[in-house]
Amino acid sequence: MSMLLRNIQHPRAVLHRHMSVVASVLRYGEFGDPAKVLQVQQETVPDPSNGEVLVKTLGAPINPADINTIQGKYPVKPKFPAVGGNECVSEVVAVGSQVGGLKVGDRVVPFASGLGTWRSYALYKESNLMRVPGSIGIAEAATITVNPCTAYRMLKDFVSLKAGDTVIQNGANSACGQAVIQLCRAWGVDCVGIVRDRPEFSKLRDHLKDMGAAEILTEEELRTTKIFKDGLFKKPKLALNCVGGKNALEVSRHLDNHGIMVTYGGMSREPVSVPTASLIFKDLQFSGFWMTRWSEINAQSPKRAEMFTELFQLIEKGALKAPAHEMIAFTDYKLGVTNALSIQGFVGKKYIFTF
Amino acid sequence: MSMLLRNIQHPRAVLHRHMSVVASVLRYGEFGDPAKVLQVQQETVPDPSNGEVLVKTLGAPINPADINTIQGKYPVKPKFPAVGGNECVSEVVAVGSQVGGLKVGDRVVPFASGLGTWRSYALYKESNLMRVPGSIGIAEAATITVNPCTAYRMLKDFVSLKAGDTVIQNGANSACGQAVIQLCRAWGVDCVGIVRDRPEFSKLRDHLKDMGAAEILTEEELRTTKIFKDGLFKKPKLALNCVGGKNALEVSRHLDNHGIMVTYGGMSREPVSVPTASLIFKDLQFSGFWMTRWSEINAQSPKRAEMFTELFQLIEKGALKAPAHEMIAFTDYKLGVTNALSIQGFVGKKYIFTF
Repeated sequence: MSMLLRNIQHPRAVLHRHMSVVASVLRYGEFGDPAKVLQVQQETVPDPSNGEVLVKTLGAPINPADINTIQGKYPVKPKFPAVGGNECVSEVVAVGSQVGGLKVGDRVVPFASGLGTWRSYALYKESNLMRVPGSIGIAEAATITVNPCTAYRMLKDFVSLKAGDTVIQNGANSACGQAVIQLCRAWGVDCVGIVRDRPEFSKLRDHLKDMGAAEILTEEELRTTKIFKDGLFKKPKLALNCVGGKNALEVSRHLDNHGIMVTYGGMSREPVSVPTASLIFKDLQFSGFWMTRWSEINAQSPKRAEMFTELFQLIEKGALKAPAHEMIAFTDYKLGVTNALSIQGFVGKKYIFTF
Repeated sequence: MSMLLRNIQHPRAVLHRHMSVVASVLRYGEFGDPAKVLQVQQETVPDPSNGEVLVKTLGAPINPADINTIQGKYPVKPKFPAVGGNECVSEVVAVGSQVGGLKVGDRVVPFASGLGTWRSYALYKESNLMRVPGSIGIAEAATITVNPCTAYRMLKDFVSLKAGDTVIQNGANSACGQAVIQLCRAWGVDCVGIVRDRPEFSKLRDHLKDMGAAEILTEEELRTTKIFKDGLFKKPKLALNCVGGKNALEVSRHLDNHGIMVTYGGMSREPVSVPTASLIFKDLQFSGFWMTRWSEINAQSPKRAEMFTELFQLIEKGALKAPAHEMIAFTDYKLGVTNALSIQGFVGKKYIFTF
C-alpha cells in the first residue's frame, strides 16, 4: 500500500498502509460438485490502482444460483479459474486514485454479478460498488442485491399494483418469497402464498402471516379455495412462480383476466403448462424474470438507485428483514455448499460466509 | 318501407319502397350439433328506424368459432333464440332516418361480433357497419373482419417487425395462416410456416411459398432444421401458434431471445408447455390474442380504421386474397356446418353462404 491511498487519517487505512493483504479465496477450475471442485487458496492482493477499491468481505451468502453455476448448470459460464459467489457486503479498507465516491470504512455491496465474492479481501472497480448505509445489518446487506431486488422488480415491472390488489405466489417460504411478502405488506398489497404441505404447516403459515402474508395455503388447499370467489380477496393481477408444473397451473387458474404470471424459478423441474383458453379468452400472459439481465440492462438507470433507496428505507424501519439465515465460517465451506440446495428446514435457511 | 327511406332516387330503394322484406334466417334455440339445432326460419323484416340500415346479405362464411359457439363450447354464449354467424358482406337496400354515412347500394361488413349474420336480410345499426370499397370481391369482404384482422394485429401489436425479420407460425395453411403469409410478404418479413406432414406436402409447400411464405416445413423437419442456426433466416422475434402441445413447444425453441409466442388457437387441444429456462434466461413471453376482445376495446380507435384502409389497399392490388373457399347455397347449410370443422383438403377450405 502506498501513496495511492487516500483518507490516510483513517486509522484502518493507516493500519493497512504498509501491509500486504493476503486473501483467502474459494476457487474452482472445473464444473462439478462444489464440495469437490472448490478449493481455498491464499493470494496476495495488490494495492488498488486507478478507480479501484480494496475491500474486506464481511459476509457473502451462498445462493442456489451460485451452486448451479459451479455445477455448470447455469447459463452464465465463468472463465476458469473462477471464484464462487455473486453477493456480499464488504468494508472499504483502501481506495486507489480517481476514486471519488467511496472512502475507507464505507460499507459496500457489489452491483455487477459474476465478480466472485467468496473471498476475504477483494479489489473491485468503484463503478461496480454501491455504498450501503451503516444502519443496514450485515445479513440484510449481504443478501440485498438478489432476492429483495428480484421481488421488488417483479412486483413493480409487470402490472401496476395498487393498495388492496392481490398477488399470488408459490414457494412463499423461499428467500425471495419472504421478500415478496414483506414488500407487499409495505405497499398494502394482499399477498396470498402457496407452500407445500408439511408436518408443521400451521406453524409455517402463522410465521409467514406474521411476516405480512394475507393468506398462506398448501397446494392442496389452493385447488379448492374460495377466497377469491367469495370476495375475501380480489382476484390476483399478478402471480409469481418459482415452482412450475401442476403447482404453477393451479396458481394461474386463480389469475384475473389480463393477469400475468412471472416465472423466476423452476424448483419442480417441470415446465409451465398453459391452457390455450386461458391465453386467448382470459388474456393471461406468461413471462420470465432474471435479475442478472435486469441489472445488466439497467446498470446506469435511475430506477436502480430508486429501488435501493426504497429497500434501504424499508430495512431501516424494520419492514424488510433478511431471510432466515446462518452465519458460517469460510473454512466450513464444504458444509455450506453441500447443504445450500437441500435444506429441508422450517423455512429455507440461507448460509452466509464470514471471514 | 316508408317515408323513412332516403336515397329514394336510387332504383333499388324505389324497388323496395313498398315491399315487405321476408328474410331467411338460420336460427338455433339450444346448444348442440349445428346440423341438428339450426333451423331455417322465415321472418318479415321491419322498415329501418332511426340509425338503422336494412341490408341484403351477399356472402356469410362459416368460421370454426361459429360452430363452437353453436356447440356451446365458446366463451361467448348467445341469448336464445340466436342467429348463427359473425361475418358477412352485405348490400344496403334501405336506410332509416339519421343514417349519415351509408346509402343504398353501398357494400358493408358488420364491425361488431355476435350480430348473427346467417340471414338473407338484416337490420343493423349504422354504427355497427363499415363501408367496403366496391373493388373488394365478395369472398374477400365476407371474410375480412376475422382472419386478416387477426393476422394483422398479431403481426403489429406484440413486437416491432422490420423488413428482413422473421416470423414463425404453425397451422400455416389455415385461413389465418394464409393471411399471415400474405401480410408478411407485403411487409418484407420472412414468414416460416409449419404444417403437418401429409401425402401431398411438397405441393402444399410450393403453394404456400407461391403465396409468399419464405419457407414451409413439416413438424418433423422443424425439429432438425438449421435454417436459423445457419443464418438463412434471422431467428424469429415472433411466433404465432394455433396448435399448442409439442408443436408449439418446438416452434418456441426457435424463438430469438426476448421473443414472443402469441397463441390464437389450440387445434391439438393440448396446452402450451413452456420450459422454465426459456422464460427466465431467454426472456420469452407467452401471450394470447382474441380478435373479438380487440374489436370491443378498439371499437372507436383510429387503429381500426387504419387497419382496414391498409387491408383494403392490399386486397385491391392483389397482395391479399381470400383463403381457399367454396360458395354454398344457404339451403345447403347442413353440409356446410357439418364439414366446416373437419375439412381435410389440400389447404383448409372455407364455406361461404350465398342467398
